[in-house]
Amino acid sequence: MRLRNVKNAQEILDNSPYVLSYKQAKEYRGQFNELCFCNFNPICLEIGMGKGQFIIEMAKKYPDINFIGIEMYESVMCRAVQKLEEEKLDNLKLICVSAETLNDIFISEIDTIYLNFSDPWPKNRHAKRRLTSSVFLEIYDSLFKGDKQIIQKTDNELLFASSIVSLSEYGYTLKEVYLDLHATELDNCMTEYEEKFSSKGVKIKYLKAVKK
Amino acid sequence: MRLRNVKNAQEILDNSPYVLSYKQAKEYRGQFNELCFCNFNPICLEIGMGKGQFIIEMAKKYPDINFIGIEMYESVMCRAVQKLEEEKLDNLKLICVSAETLNDIFISEIDTIYLNFSDPWPKNRHAKRRLTSSVFLEIYDSLFKGDKQIIQKTDNELLFASSIVSLSEYGYTLKEVYLDLHATELDNCMTEYEEKFSSKGVKIKYLKAVKK
Repeated sequence: MRLRNVKNAQEILDNSPYVLSYKQAKEYRGQFNELCFCNFNPICLEIGMGKGQFIIEMAKKYPDINFIGIEMYESVMCRAVQKLEEEKLDNLKLICVSAETLNDIFISEIDTIYLNFSDPWPKNRHAKRRLTSSVFLEIYDSLFKGDKQIIQKTDNELLFASSIVSLSEYGYTLKEVYLDLHATELDNCMTEYEEKFSSKGVKIKYLKAVKK
Repeated sequence: MRLRNVKNAQEILDNSPYVLSYKQAKEYRGQFNELCFCNFNPICLEIGMGKGQFIIEMAKKYPDINFIGIEMYESVMCRAVQKLEEEKLDNLKLICVSAETLNDIFISEIDTIYLNFSDPWPKNRHAKRRLTSSVFLEIYDSLFKGDKQIIQKTDNELLFASSIVSLSEYGYTLKEVYLDLHATELDNCMTEYEEKFSSKGVKIKYLKAVKK
């Protein structure tokens, strides 16, 4: 998701108490619980948090879970920072990096990864760029503390089908699958995108996959 | 699928060279290749073959594969038998039984199981009746010769999602998943139901699952 450039985006991020720089984040590697959150609550990571509605709502709803959102575009993350101006959430941190750098930042400390409405990369020759390709599943492997758990939402049929195959072939077990999430009674915080497109009748797909 | 009763259904089945009685089928158990088909070609089984369009087309298209269709309703199987009157297919047999009896009929001889547009049993309390529930996956286990392969088509979102979870939890790997089969270039023989509903714009879901 690209947005028009936000003036002083870097400055806005630098001044937010929610945003960790890449350098700071690397210093917490393996010790986010102790050094960053000062508790031993589970840590959930959203990769591609966009404008932040999902992760901010989750952080408010589940104060006993720590949330970290990453997003590669500064101008997009600024929108989340603006939403957080009036908030006081101790269990939320944001880092402006791309998913390729995750192994520099985390090791053996994540409980759940959320992938919400990731870029579907619809062309076959770009399949490896999808956030559920084996390239990324390998990156995620060493991030997790114990059992690996990935939760994905998307409206894109191709990405969803490709994720099921990729996760299954990589050794994940599909524990929950819904082709129309909003028709279920599952507890759900919506992203901005999800709110917009589901209101137009687009069906949201959901999966939860687990690997020992 | 129930149809209005066909007069003399039992007689029509008894007189067809394509139809094996339950008694005959039991006698072939473990030796369908040698005793029934007189060759060592792979054997594919369609559970719930309905009016037979899929399996008849498959048998014509792939003469080097043996096909066996089972269907629990005599009056439905009669429709398939009627379609076969002008045909001469050595690689096709039909048996009028329910899926619960499969272990009486086959052992270690099936290569692929096809499940086309099976009853979705939409209520949770009937989930065990779905042909991809663990109850049936356990029945299928001993039917297969080597690697277990199940191919499913359905237009029912709930059945499809439930099949993915059930197969994955049972140890199957999802090798192929499509949420809109007809938008792919996959080679596909259609069932009568599929032809009717896809022409109305209903999207057909497809999966191929494999277990060692």
